[in-house]
Amino acid sequence: MRRTFEPRPSQEAFDWADRWPLPQGTEQIPLAEAAGRVLAQDLAAPVDIPREPRSARDGYALRAAETLGAGDYNPLPLRLSPAALPLERGRAAWVADGDPLPPGADAVLTMEQGEARGGVLEVGAALACGDGVVGAGEECAAGGPLLRAGRRLRPQDLARLALAGMTEVPVRRRPRARIILAGHFDADADGPLLAALVRRDGGQVTEVLAVSDETALIGVLQQPHADLILVAGGTGHGPQDAAVGALERCGSLHLDGVAIHPGGGIVLGQSASRPVILLPGAPLACLCAYDLVAARALRRMSGRPGHLPYRRRVLTLGRKIASSIGRLEVARLKITGDTAQPIATADGRTLATAVQADGFLLIPEQSEGYPPGSRVEPYLYDDYD
Amino acid sequence: MRRTFEPRPSQEAFDWADRWPLPQGTEQIPLAEAAGRVLAQDLAAPVDIPREPRSARDGYALRAAETLGAGDYNPLPLRLSPAALPLERGRAAWVADGDPLPPGADAVLTMEQGEARGGVLEVGAALACGDGVVGAGEECAAGGPLLRAGRRLRPQDLARLALAGMTEVPVRRRPRARIILAGHFDADADGPLLAALVRRDGGQVTEVLAVSDETALIGVLQQPHADLILVAGGTGHGPQDAAVGALERCGSLHLDGVAIHPGGGIVLGQSASRPVILLPGAPLACLCAYDLVAARALRRMSGRPGHLPYRRRVLTLGRKIASSIGRLEVARLKITGDTAQPIATADGRTLATAVQADGFLLIPEQSEGYPPGSRVEPYLYDDYD
Repeated sequence: MRRTFEPRPSQEAFDWADRWPLPQGTEQIPLAEAAGRVLAQDLAAPVDIPREPRSARDGYALRAAETLGAGDYNPLPLRLSPAALPLERGRAAWVADGDPLPPGADAVLTMEQGEARGGVLEVGAALACGDGVVGAGEECAAGGPLLRAGRRLRPQDLARLALAGMTEVPVRRRPRARIILAGHFDADADGPLLAALVRRDGGQVTEVLAVSDETALIGVLQQPHADLILVAGGTGHGPQDAAVGALERCGSLHLDGVAIHPGGGIVLGQSASRPVILLPGAPLACLCAYDLVAARALRRMSGRPGHLPYRRRVLTLGRKIASSIGRLEVARLKITGDTAQPIATADGRTLATAVQADGFLLIPEQSEGYPPGSRVEPYLYDDYD
Repeated sequence: MRRTFEPRPSQEAFDWADRWPLPQGTEQIPLAEAAGRVLAQDLAAPVDIPREPRSARDGYALRAAETLGAGDYNPLPLRLSPAALPLERGRAAWVADGDPLPPGADAVLTMEQGEARGGVLEVGAALACGDGVVGAGEECAAGGPLLRAGRRLRPQDLARLALAGMTEVPVRRRPRARIILAGHFDADADGPLLAALVRRDGGQVTEVLAVSDETALIGVLQQPHADLILVAGGTGHGPQDAAVGALERCGSLHLDGVAIHPGGGIVLGQSASRPVILLPGAPLACLCAYDLVAARALRRMSGRPGHLPYRRRVLTLGRKIASSIGRLEVARLKITGDTAQPIATADGRTLATAVQADGFLLIPEQSEGYPPGSRVEPYLYDDYD
């Protein structure tokens, strides 16, 4: 009942996590729901955006050539006309920011640059053609690239597509994660934990199943309709621990144990060409192993940067922090002002430490820790969005 | 048709944005959906967590006192029994990580510290009481605080509540944002833009309405069932611009114009004790004004840190970047390796600049910009989770 256990350097786990592609499959979704999704194909502008020249300010549309020589001490008069009509020579028309220019106009005077009185505008500045104007096609010319395939859509990208008249957009399918609870204890805790983490990282949870028997596990590891499989628990060395055996029988093991702590019991492999990650069942170890390895894989599969989702901050260590050479340590910290204090725990076994902590420091494999007063840059648990 | 226009320092807008409280109102939601929500009340543990001592490792449960003197060169034998039974003196039992300890056991030997052969365990290390054990109540004692009201729930918090047997959780209502499109152009673009931004910042969009007439605007500004109202467009100085007048007639104006660029036409006020933010209709200005001011208000109202949601990175400026004294400039940048290049634009009027940009630098009001080679720390558009 005992496997050879030789934890592998964390970099091997990270390299493995980085190699999984975005899932195949495209769906057409409403533009308003597409933020954060990955564009499935190149999109081109069907028409010039904007279609016609627009004013870029509230002001007076006019012919730039007719402002030649105008200045504070040499105001030139233009008669005001309605903007709806083509602009005759010697005239100007009030336009609001975003209004199409009246035909004939080629520049827009700001309100500060002119004074309107009784139907006459006194022009107090000389303009160049195009001043205060967004030209036809200036946002994007007809046929030009709107956005490229593979782009993770930003809010402003949705606005760009809306300007092009689009109301739906083709995006890559979100990676689907199957969550399997194979442990005998704390499975109730790992379910909501992993579901929240998967959603944070851009995945969709297809199901959360409690399965601990080896034959049943082989079944759910082989089922289609998932791009990533997370198994929590059942990875230990006891007679009831069936997850590793199940994975070996229906797929392959890549790494059995990684030099991280907590969470070193993580096992990486694949089944039906999909990544399978076996996580420790103890919630703290499950969280740490997920964050370091599974989050990295899933975030890349959803088109995000693969790094940890937490923001970092440079702080001073208030007390010494020790770590064992040979493993990457997730050291939980309390932060007060600019000082970080390690949370004292015998062996970092309670989830409470990750609840009380404001963040964590990653202590590299080759380090024994840091003396008090060290400048460190921990990750902040509350600052991940 | 012209208002006095004296843009106010950006800090005044930030102070205004920081003063709105979380919305009143609580809802009970499933634990699995509660990540990122704000806990509405203090929660206490109904029972000890864990209820009984648990093993913190795969190994052998035993009495620590019976290992006294054991070592590599002095292995002490204990007979193995099933873990389901109370542990008799002189015995040990295999337990998996997370298993309850058999009654009588008080420590757990790792597999490396002992060797089992033919029903006998050779104990190779002396343990102290509690080694390898999570004690009853060690995660949280019965009656002790599980989590405090006001906490923005993390994935590990959900696991903690699940360990306490909870399946639902009382959370503060999400701030509801009403989006009103009051402009005459580009309203189609501002709708998806603002909806995506509101969702990013933890709000829920109750409706997106196109309303530009002053009387109708007064109606929707006064309607209940919103905690924040965003109006895009209709804020200029033209005869069709009804948003400012409507707000003055049914509420109050706090700031009319802020020294930021793009987006300086933003107007801040309130109606029915709720914040009302009038944003410029041009999509680029709308985006910048939202990000600098509205995001700050909404993120605080949803229990998040108020700072900009984008991560920052220290880079070297490849070309000089100029800014006008007296306004906070949102300077869009392209990033190549460790170098940031300002995007050349006449006056930063096209949304395309925020689509092409990898990020933006905020240039303070008192700065005229930076020479080439300056170390700057821009915000990254693609790195907001």
